[in-house]
Amino acid sequence: MPADEFRKYGYEVVDWIANYFEHIDEYPVLSQVEPNWLKDNMPASAPENGEDFGTVLADVDRLIMPAVTHWNHPNFHGLFSTSTSSVGVFGEMLTAAFDLKGMLWRTSPVSTELEDVVLDWLRQMMDLPEHFEGIIYDTASVSTMHAIAAAREKAGFSIRDKGMSGRDDVPLLRVYCSEHVHSSIDKGVITLGLGLRSLRKIECNDRFEMIPEKLAAAIEEDIAAGYKPICVIPTIGTTSTSSVDPVDAIADICEKYGIWLHVDTAYAGSTAIVPEYRPLFKGWERADSIVVNPHKWLFTPFDLSVLYCKDLSVLKDAFSLVAEYLKTTGEQSVKNGMDYGIQLGRRFRALKFWFVIRYFGREGLIARLRDHCRLARLFASWVEASDRFELLAPVPFALVCFRACPAGVEDLNALNERIMNDINTSGEAYLSHTKLGDKYTLRLSVGSIRVEERHITKVWDSLNRHLAEGGVA
Amino acid sequence: MPADEFRKYGYEVVDWIANYFEHIDEYPVLSQVEPNWLKDNMPASAPENGEDFGTVLADVDRLIMPAVTHWNHPNFHGLFSTSTSSVGVFGEMLTAAFDLKGMLWRTSPVSTELEDVVLDWLRQMMDLPEHFEGIIYDTASVSTMHAIAAAREKAGFSIRDKGMSGRDDVPLLRVYCSEHVHSSIDKGVITLGLGLRSLRKIECNDRFEMIPEKLAAAIEEDIAAGYKPICVIPTIGTTSTSSVDPVDAIADICEKYGIWLHVDTAYAGSTAIVPEYRPLFKGWERADSIVVNPHKWLFTPFDLSVLYCKDLSVLKDAFSLVAEYLKTTGEQSVKNGMDYGIQLGRRFRALKFWFVIRYFGREGLIARLRDHCRLARLFASWVEASDRFELLAPVPFALVCFRACPAGVEDLNALNERIMNDINTSGEAYLSHTKLGDKYTLRLSVGSIRVEERHITKVWDSLNRHLAEGGVA
Repeated sequence: MPADEFRKYGYEVVDWIANYFEHIDEYPVLSQVEPNWLKDNMPASAPENGEDFGTVLADVDRLIMPAVTHWNHPNFHGLFSTSTSSVGVFGEMLTAAFDLKGMLWRTSPVSTELEDVVLDWLRQMMDLPEHFEGIIYDTASVSTMHAIAAAREKAGFSIRDKGMSGRDDVPLLRVYCSEHVHSSIDKGVITLGLGLRSLRKIECNDRFEMIPEKLAAAIEEDIAAGYKPICVIPTIGTTSTSSVDPVDAIADICEKYGIWLHVDTAYAGSTAIVPEYRPLFKGWERADSIVVNPHKWLFTPFDLSVLYCKDLSVLKDAFSLVAEYLKTTGEQSVKNGMDYGIQLGRRFRALKFWFVIRYFGREGLIARLRDHCRLARLFASWVEASDRFELLAPVPFALVCFRACPAGVEDLNALNERIMNDINTSGEAYLSHTKLGDKYTLRLSVGSIRVEERHITKVWDSLNRHLAEGGVA
Repeated sequence: MPADEFRKYGYEVVDWIANYFEHIDEYPVLSQVEPNWLKDNMPASAPENGEDFGTVLADVDRLIMPAVTHWNHPNFHGLFSTSTSSVGVFGEMLTAAFDLKGMLWRTSPVSTELEDVVLDWLRQMMDLPEHFEGIIYDTASVSTMHAIAAAREKAGFSIRDKGMSGRDDVPLLRVYCSEHVHSSIDKGVITLGLGLRSLRKIECNDRFEMIPEKLAAAIEEDIAAGYKPICVIPTIGTTSTSSVDPVDAIADICEKYGIWLHVDTAYAGSTAIVPEYRPLFKGWERADSIVVNPHKWLFTPFDLSVLYCKDLSVLKDAFSLVAEYLKTTGEQSVKNGMDYGIQLGRRFRALKFWFVIRYFGREGLIARLRDHCRLARLFASWVEASDRFELLAPVPFALVCFRACPAGVEDLNALNERIMNDINTSGEAYLSHTKLGDKYTLRLSVGSIRVEERHITKVWDSLNRHLAEGGVA
C-alpha cells in the first residue's frame, strides 16, 4: 500500500476508533445477533481480486459491529471487566508495524530488554522482592501451565527428558488448589499429561477461602498413599467471588513439605500496586511463581500475562532447546525469550504496557483501581441496604456477588437467572453468574477504564426494574 | 484520553508508521546496539505521574528504534522472512480497540464466526477437502502441541482424566518426525509430559526428506518393543532447508498402523494457494491435522497460526471443560473457542486476516508468493552459475541453502560463518544458517511483502564483496 493511501486509511481507522470510544455506551453491551448471523451474511469464498480498503472498512460497520459484544463498554460487568486504554491501542499499532518475533535477543533486542524493564517496574510497584524475575506470556492459562511445568520438572523425575509414559517409577503427582479456582488450572494439568486425577481441590470456609488445615491433611494423606505433591496453587482473587486464599499459611505448608508454591492472582494482582490493598497479598513474596495479568485490570489490550518466578532458570531447565538454526555467537550473557516456554516466537507485548505505565504513571493507575473498588463497595452498600437483594460473598476488590431475594419467591435461582438474562438480552449491561453452594449468584465486576458512578447506578436501577417487571414488586 | 487527543496522537502514530514503512530499507536490518543498551538507558523505576503521550512517542525514536531488528525490512532473509502488510496493521488497531476475549460464542460472536469464515476461505484457496475445520492459535508451537495432545487422547489411555503419572498401564508413547523438523515438536512432547524420549527422529535422504521405509521400520521395531506409536509429523517445508517429506507415502503407513498424521506446513502451507505448487502437498488431504501460519507468509501480523483438523471434536474431547461461570443458556449449537485448547481467552485474530484476504484477493496473494519463489530461484541460479558458491539443498519454495566454497580454502565452515556475521553486523541484510551434515550452511529466505529484485541483487553483491574482503578473491 502506498504511503499516502496508508495515511488516508490509517486516519480513517483512527477516526473510527475515536468515534467508537466516544459513543461506546450507546451500544448494547451484548451483541444482539442470533447464532450464524455473521456467517450467513458473508460470501462463501474469498474474493478473487483485491478490494479497495474503503469497502472493507465500510463492511466493519455493516457486518462486524452488529456481532460485537462490547468488552470496552463501561457496563460490561461480566466475568472480569477488562478494558483497553487509548494508549494501549497505540502500542498495538506499533507492535503490528514492527511485527517482530521475540525469540532470540538478537532478533529483537528491544522486545527482550523492554520486557525486563517493564516487568521490573511492575514488580517494584507491587512491592515484590527483587529476586522475582518475570516473563510475558499470552494468557494466564499459559502462564499457569508453565508454572506447573516448572514444578513438575523440579519434582525430580526427569520428565522433560524421559516423560511419564512407559515408566513405573513416577508416583501419582499431585497439584492442590481450592474449589473456587479458575478452569485454567484444570486445563494446565490436562495439557501437561498429569490429568484431572492429579488435581486435588481443597475445601473452603464460608468466605470461599482455602482452609490450610484441610490442605495439610490432604498432603499428609497423599504422601501416606505414596503420591508426590508437586504444587500448591492458592488464589488471591478467585474467579467466582474474588476471595483470597490465606497464602502465608499455605506458604508455611509448602515450605514444610518442599512443594512449589504458585500464586494465581491474574485478576487481583494489579491491586498490589495500591498500598492499602497489600495486606491481602501477605505471603505471596514467599511464592516460587506468581501470575498477574496486566490485560485484565491495568488497561493493557489483550493479551499480556506475566509470570514472575523466584528462580526463572527452572523454567529454562524445563524448556530450553537450541536448534542449530537458532544458535548465535558472542551473546552468551543475553536472555533469549524462547528459552522460557513452549512458544518460540513471542509478540512484542511489552511496548503497549510501557505506554500504559508512562501515560498514566504509578499514581494514575492507583487512582483508577481505587475508584473501581470504591464503586464496587458503593454498589455492595446498596445491595446491603435493600430488602430485596443480598450480598453472597465479601467484596475484597471490585467484584460484587449478590442476588435478588424478594420475600415470597420460592425459586430464587430461577428468578435470578431470569433477571440476568433479561438485563443481558436488553443490552443495557452485561452481568455474569456463578453458583455458590446451591445459590445462583449474580456477579458485577467493575474494572473498565470508562466506568463512572452513573454506570453503576444504571445497573442498580435496571436490576430493580427487571425484578419488578417479572411481577415481583 | 479525550477523543480529540486520541485523534491527534493516533494520526501521529499513523504518520510514524507510514514513514517507517516508506524508509524501511534505509535502516540496518539487525539492531546495532550492544546487549543491555536499552536497559541502561531506561529509568530504573516507573514514573510516579503520567506523562504526555507526545513525550512517549518521542522516546520511541530515541530509545526503541535503535534496539529494533527490522523483521519488515525487505532484506531480512533470516529464519523465515515474514512481514506484515499495511492492512494487517489496520486489523490489529481494531482488534485492540474491541479488546474482546473470544472464549464463548456470546462474549464474541464476531470473533467466533469470522474465524470460521476466513478459515474456510483459506481452506478452499488451499484446495483442502471440506471436512477440514480450523481453529486459530497464537503460534505453530501451540498448534502442534494441541495436535499431539489430540493424538495422545485418541490413543485411548484416558490421559485427560487419569494422566500418565502413578500408572503402569501406559506404554511408552511414540511420536515420529524427521531429523530436520522444527524445535516446536521437541517442545510439544516436553510440555505434554511425553518427554524427549518419546520423540523418534527418522533418517532423511540426501534431499533432506524423511525416508518412509525407515519410518515403517521404526514403527515396527517400537511395536515389537511394546511401545505405542501415536503420531507421525511429516513436514512440508522443513525449517532447515524447506524440504518436503513424502506425505502420501507416510499417510499409507499411518493408515496401516492407525496413527495420527499431523502435517507441519507452518511455513510453506501458504503456497498451497498457488496451483502449480499443489503437487508438493500430495497426501496432506489424508492428514488428521495440519498446521499453517498466515503470520509467516500471508502478510498477516504475528501472531496467527491455524490448525486444521479432520475431526475437530477430538480436540474438544481432550480440552473442553465448562466451569459454572462460563455456562450460558440457549446456545447449544454454537462453537465456543475456549473448548478447543488450553487458552480460555483468545484474541480476535481473524479480523486482520480477513482484511488481508479482502485487500489482496486470492489472485493478489498468489502473485506475491509466485514472485518470492521466482526471486529465490533467481538467486539460486546465480549461486549455481558461480564457481565460488554452491547450493546445498533443493529450492522447492523460496528458501535457498548455499555456501561460499572458493578454491583453496580449507575451513569452509569458518569462512561462511565469518561472511554471515560480517553481513549481519553491517546491517545490509540479515541471513541465518543451519548445519547440513557437517557443512555450515547459509540460508536466504525470500518472503517480505516489500522485497524486490534489487534487494536480492544487493545480497548477492554483498556476499561477493564480503567474500573478497576476507582475502579470498
